[in-house]
Amino acid sequence: MPEALNVGLVGYKFMGRAHSNAYLSVAKFFDTKLTPVMKAVCGRNESAVQEFAQQWGWESIETDWRELIARDDVHLIDIGSPGDTHAEIAIEAAKAGKHVFCEKPLANSLEECKRMIAAVRSTGVRHMVNFNYRKCPAVALAKQMIRAGDLGEIRHVRATYLQDWLVDPEFPMNWRLRKQSAGSGAHGDLGAHIVDLARFLVGNITEVVGEMKTFVTERPAEGDSSGLSGSAGSGGKEQVTVDDCSLFLARFADGAVGTFEATRMAPGRKNFNRLEINGSKGSLVWCFEDLNYLDYYNCDDPSHAQGFRRILATEGEHPYAGAWWPPGHMLGYDHTFVNAVADLVEGVATGENPSPCFLAGANCVSVLESVERSVATGKWESVEQVN
Amino acid sequence: MPEALNVGLVGYKFMGRAHSNAYLSVAKFFDTKLTPVMKAVCGRNESAVQEFAQQWGWESIETDWRELIARDDVHLIDIGSPGDTHAEIAIEAAKAGKHVFCEKPLANSLEECKRMIAAVRSTGVRHMVNFNYRKCPAVALAKQMIRAGDLGEIRHVRATYLQDWLVDPEFPMNWRLRKQSAGSGAHGDLGAHIVDLARFLVGNITEVVGEMKTFVTERPAEGDSSGLSGSAGSGGKEQVTVDDCSLFLARFADGAVGTFEATRMAPGRKNFNRLEINGSKGSLVWCFEDLNYLDYYNCDDPSHAQGFRRILATEGEHPYAGAWWPPGHMLGYDHTFVNAVADLVEGVATGENPSPCFLAGANCVSVLESVERSVATGKWESVEQVN
Amino acid sequence: MPEALNVGLVGYKFMGRAHSNAYLSVAKFFDTKLTPVMKAVCGRNESAVQEFAQQWGWESIETDWRELIARDDVHLIDIGSPGDTHAEIAIEAAKAGKHVFCEKPLANSLEECKRMIAAVRSTGVRHMVNFNYRKCPAVALAKQMIRAGDLGEIRHVRATYLQDWLVDPEFPMNWRLRKQSAGSGAHGDLGAHIVDLARFLVGNITEVVGEMKTFVTERPAEGDSSGLSGSAGSGGKEQVTVDDCSLFLARFADGAVGTFEATRMAPGRKNFNRLEINGSKGSLVWCFEDLNYLDYYNCDDPSHAQGFRRILATEGEHPYAGAWWPPGHMLGYDHTFVNAVADLVEGVATGENPSPCFLAGANCVSVLESVERSVATGKWESVEQVN
Amino acid sequence: MPEALNVGLVGYKFMGRAHSNAYLSVAKFFDTKLTPVMKAVCGRNESAVQEFAQQWGWESIETDWRELIARDDVHLIDIGSPGDTHAEIAIEAAKAGKHVFCEKPLANSLEECKRMIAAVRSTGVRHMVNFNYRKCPAVALAKQMIRAGDLGEIRHVRATYLQDWLVDPEFPMNWRLRKQSAGSGAHGDLGAHIVDLARFLVGNITEVVGEMKTFVTERPAEGDSSGLSGSAGSGGKEQVTVDDCSLFLARFADGAVGTFEATRMAPGRKNFNRLEINGSKGSLVWCFEDLNYLDYYNCDDPSHAQGFRRILATEGEHPYAGAWWPPGHMLGYDHTFVNAVADLVEGVATGENPSPCFLAGANCVSVLESVERSVATGKWESVEQVN
Repeated sequence: MPEALNVGLVGYKFMGRAHSNAYLSVAKFFDTKLTPVMKAVCGRNESAVQEFAQQWGWESIETDWRELIARDDVHLIDIGSPGDTHAEIAIEAAKAGKHVFCEKPLANSLEECKRMIAAVRSTGVRHMVNFNYRKCPAVALAKQMIRAGDLGEIRHVRATYLQDWLVDPEFPMNWRLRKQSAGSGAHGDLGAHIVDLARFLVGNITEVVGEMKTFVTERPAEGDSSGLSGSAGSGGKEQVTVDDCSLFLARFADGAVGTFEATRMAPGRKNFNRLEINGSKGSLVWCFEDLNYLDYYNCDDPSHAQGFRRILATEGEHPYAGAWWPPGHMLGYDHTFVNAVADLVEGVATGENPSPCFLAGANCVSVLESVERSVATGKWESVEQVN
Repeated sequence: MPEALNVGLVGYKFMGRAHSNAYLSVAKFFDTKLTPVMKAVCGRNESAVQEFAQQWGWESIETDWRELIARDDVHLIDIGSPGDTHAEIAIEAAKAGKHVFCEKPLANSLEECKRMIAAVRSTGVRHMVNFNYRKCPAVALAKQMIRAGDLGEIRHVRATYLQDWLVDPEFPMNWRLRKQSAGSGAHGDLGAHIVDLARFLVGNITEVVGEMKTFVTERPAEGDSSGLSGSAGSGGKEQVTVDDCSLFLARFADGAVGTFEATRMAPGRKNFNRLEINGSKGSLVWCFEDLNYLDYYNCDDPSHAQGFRRILATEGEHPYAGAWWPPGHMLGYDHTFVNAVADLVEGVATGENPSPCFLAGANCVSVLESVERSVATGKWESVEQVN
Repeated sequence: MPEALNVGLVGYKFMGRAHSNAYLSVAKFFDTKLTPVMKAVCGRNESAVQEFAQQWGWESIETDWRELIARDDVHLIDIGSPGDTHAEIAIEAAKAGKHVFCEKPLANSLEECKRMIAAVRSTGVRHMVNFNYRKCPAVALAKQMIRAGDLGEIRHVRATYLQDWLVDPEFPMNWRLRKQSAGSGAHGDLGAHIVDLARFLVGNITEVVGEMKTFVTERPAEGDSSGLSGSAGSGGKEQVTVDDCSLFLARFADGAVGTFEATRMAPGRKNFNRLEINGSKGSLVWCFEDLNYLDYYNCDDPSHAQGFRRILATEGEHPYAGAWWPPGHMLGYDHTFVNAVADLVEGVATGENPSPCFLAGANCVSVLESVERSVATGKWESVEQVN
Repeated sequence: MPEALNVGLVGYKFMGRAHSNAYLSVAKFFDTKLTPVMKAVCGRNESAVQEFAQQWGWESIETDWRELIARDDVHLIDIGSPGDTHAEIAIEAAKAGKHVFCEKPLANSLEECKRMIAAVRSTGVRHMVNFNYRKCPAVALAKQMIRAGDLGEIRHVRATYLQDWLVDPEFPMNWRLRKQSAGSGAHGDLGAHIVDLARFLVGNITEVVGEMKTFVTERPAEGDSSGLSGSAGSGGKEQVTVDDCSLFLARFADGAVGTFEATRMAPGRKNFNRLEINGSKGSLVWCFEDLNYLDYYNCDDPSHAQGFRRILATEGEHPYAGAWWPPGHMLGYDHTFVNAVADLVEGVATGENPSPCFLAGANCVSVLESVERSVATGKWESVEQVN
């Protein structure tokens, strides 16, 4: 039986569930060198967090993240709370010598990201940002193929992340719609993922020009009887302070050009996180709504039989897939978190920092911030690279 | 300018239009060795056929097919009338030394087919049956690939031809719903096509067991004021005397097994003529509703990158495609008729009988008849091969 | 905290993993009225089963299923071993007053199924057979829609379950390829699923006519150094004693007709479990290789805007889906087992027998046996209905 | 028999064929109020144009377009030559009182477009620019649905036109790769189409910011023995003076935002002209590589059964489709030209100017030019609207 890796989790909502499930499952499917132990979960609402802990099997709870970090029996802090809390928690955790696993975006500003990197570097802890879509077998396979040169010189990236949950103007406010907590809207929530995937697969982005827009500018305030829901206006409406969509053009360091678009206003698109990459030797297409597939066009196929090849990335030899089921036994959303945690545990066990680390998180934020600058200036902006 | 090939066409409805368009276009796109001349079109309703002739540029009309055959200035008889007329017209045409191009099914019975073959053989004219779907570039490409051994030993054929125009019980009677004129329903109309495609691509069918069914057993009589619409019952209803669907299992001479299904009762399927073929080395899938594509799975692809390859069969090197437009400039239904007529004209010009000839038509009818026998006996029936 | 439901599992291979994962996860995602406790797992190889128990968190092990049944602290016996063991274990478990959850096919013969039903009836325990594909949200949605009359009168069922893992003739023997242990090949393994799905969605099958075939008749014996691998022939080859494929036509009690095909010889098809159903008012299509989608054609859509609608069955209101993630966050293979176990636990807790029960398992086997009879007689065979 | 509309065609290459085929076919399928007569075709190479005329049935030839315009027996001038010739020919034709049908882009500069509009206005002739993709039934259906309000307020346009014929660096130079003749590369050739489609379906574009790039900067000179192929460099190479790709963001007058991308460097994309439009009530998607389909998502569908509906736009009630074949009998590339010419002939016959007219052509060029300005300035540029 491998040694324990004691985890302290901050947050118990959507990401809290997904992370808890990953800790529960990872050692069942992967031969991990450490066994994650669900030591404590932290949230401000004691009864709610208590109920969550019992449901998921967390051994104990905390209501103050500083207490969580202070515990001797916790080795790893997992941050699944809103973006405005990431920097402070991560820095304190690093100072306390805890490894840090952080949800994306890494933080709401590049400046925060840099301080987080400084903190984990100075204390030498492991650090990872949870860009979970990298952990789809089909995406990881794309990376392998691009690294092997199957696409030749990359020329085009076409990235969209489309959802539709804000189309209804009566959908009420929540923290994701407030700039203070979320930093931005579709931009940081969805755009962060496609920026990271593009950087992962193609490389650094050096210049951007963009546009952001809010189509529904106020929404029903959240239904709390306290009447304390922030800036709720007359008639129970609250101002939306983030974008509904962001779109931008990008230049990559190696000469490729790209289009990026994130929106929550595309009817029928539920989690349409899609990338198409064209190179001098072939093309790849992936979309989360068909997450197990990778479409591949190979210019070197016999000329009478060329065509996009629909690879079902569930073979034993495909990344991560061998840990799961036989070929054709499809994987879903939560498997990406388990795969990510498998990498995290491996990284902690071996001392080799898991990927993607905070640098990837920071460079993603740097791109996002550059787009926001471009929206303000109306022109191309260069992107600061964090090393 | 190549010599003329004078055509006499029997029928001026759906098939009349499709054939006329083919004669009009073929020498524009293909370097034909003869130039089809639209000499005469024949139909019983003089004013209607006259109007059709003017619209399409036929030089003259006839109202009696025997007169058409008797004309010295006609070299080729094209039969586009209902199935019960094919045998007599074709035999007389052959006797008169005319080449014969015949719509499918070749005839309503195998016995008629045999007499047709005897006639064209004894007079040495060219003969072709219009299984137009063979002439889709994607289907012809499939044939090339199978002949080249790309699929290895064929094991499975999965053929369906689904339409939905009879789902509405108020759809009125027409000649296609009467056994006397049509021979059968979906069976002969749609089943004939998939049986031919399977025979074309995989080979002879030796045994079958099947089922045929009529879901809507009477329909509104056709709205003719004459009141002469055959067996119209009380309330203006007429008995449907053909099948709405047929389905059967088949054994092929070379060891493959197949499922076949034809129906006009599949909501949403408009012209869903689809074949999937599995061999020991790969698979092919084609469907008319995406007619320009051929899906191909190659077991010899690198193991990490196997998948169905969606070949867009519009490249210059694909069969027939080079005569048309640049790659990606899609072809449609009528192009299959033009391609067929290109083969027909080539066959007449060279003296080498075009494909598919009446033998293919007869063997298709033999399979259809065997299925009907099986429906009667409730057991497997062997299929007579016509040579 | 709900009361415990103590589980004893027989089998620890593929199905053992899938079931273990379901017990581990079910109470995290569903508000179950009982909490499954992974009490004991049973297998003949002590060290292997011990390792499995530790990996998955089973509290104890047994090496004799009779001992497992004899334990007072086990409430439910879960049978995940090969088909030839199901009847005896299930009957003994029922006699001991244990609830029984059994993998499919329920047994290798209808006679065994009947004895199993008699046993569970006489002792009044809960019984369920694990046709897990019923538990895909998209399939359960199809059931709801058909029950609501959205398809009208059902006319056509088109079912295929295609895999390709036996295409390679060097794939070695295992228990699934021996009639003694598996009962049949693709027929009982894959055909059982599509027969059940068709019965679930459309109703009873009354008559069948079929064909079964083995393309690769001998295979390398399993690589055990003992030399005891049964009937291994000269050169280390062993005879394959089951079918590679089965295909049949079916008549349903309510007038529909169907085609069914199961094979392990279809290159490129990994787990292509697909059903298309056509009714008088619409059509539905589902395929496991896109398991989260249900395609729906509605004849009542406005005539200019009819078309197959691709429903992504991940909305909160879709069956089972609300227990998981937000819309568009796709589910996979293992979720079907968790959903099944949620139903199982609910059934045990409420005393209302969960679905599908052993009757469904028996009627599925009855269809399969009728097909085998038809293969022997060469004609249509009627299907015994078990009530 | 309707009166004649005598056509004089300039150009006899790719567009010459497509237009000739349209004149040949239009009166066969449509009840046109005038009958196009293929009076004369014009090209500089006398023997080549003579051969073309004979193949397609043009009654006579000209080698100087001024002579063509001067002919009394020509009513309509059809301009299918490179973009740098459009303005002069169109203006002279209009001055001579001839109707003008012009290939896209309308001209290589907005200034030329304005002069063309002035000319056709001052003489009152009919004028049409051949944005043929508007004439796909599925696209025309999209227009109908948007006009009817089915999409609500439009928010997003996502347009790509991808091809791959320049991926091979050995593909030789031709007129489309020289700025002098073509004006631009992918931008004017492909981008023009998607800009027009977006303007057609969504409305005016007011501001743009873009990027253009040439990946392969020199190519083998065309193989002409004359040695006169322009700027051919050492080693038989010639400089490519147009873009391989263009991409831009756009703001629409009514508040929507869009991304546009045109490239000839996307392996596997042959004629991937695709638009997705998201509104407050639904979405539409169309792609030429599946030209007969229109995907439609309707937010008002019952909540359990929402999904993209794949409309096969071949029903009799769909725009243009009724002129052709029964439902499901697919149309192809050339049908779009026939449909366009049907509109053209109708416009000439009725005196109501056909759509799209030169204004649409000019406004498209205005967008393209604004993108080019933006590439030069690195910032958003406003788009001049031509009225």
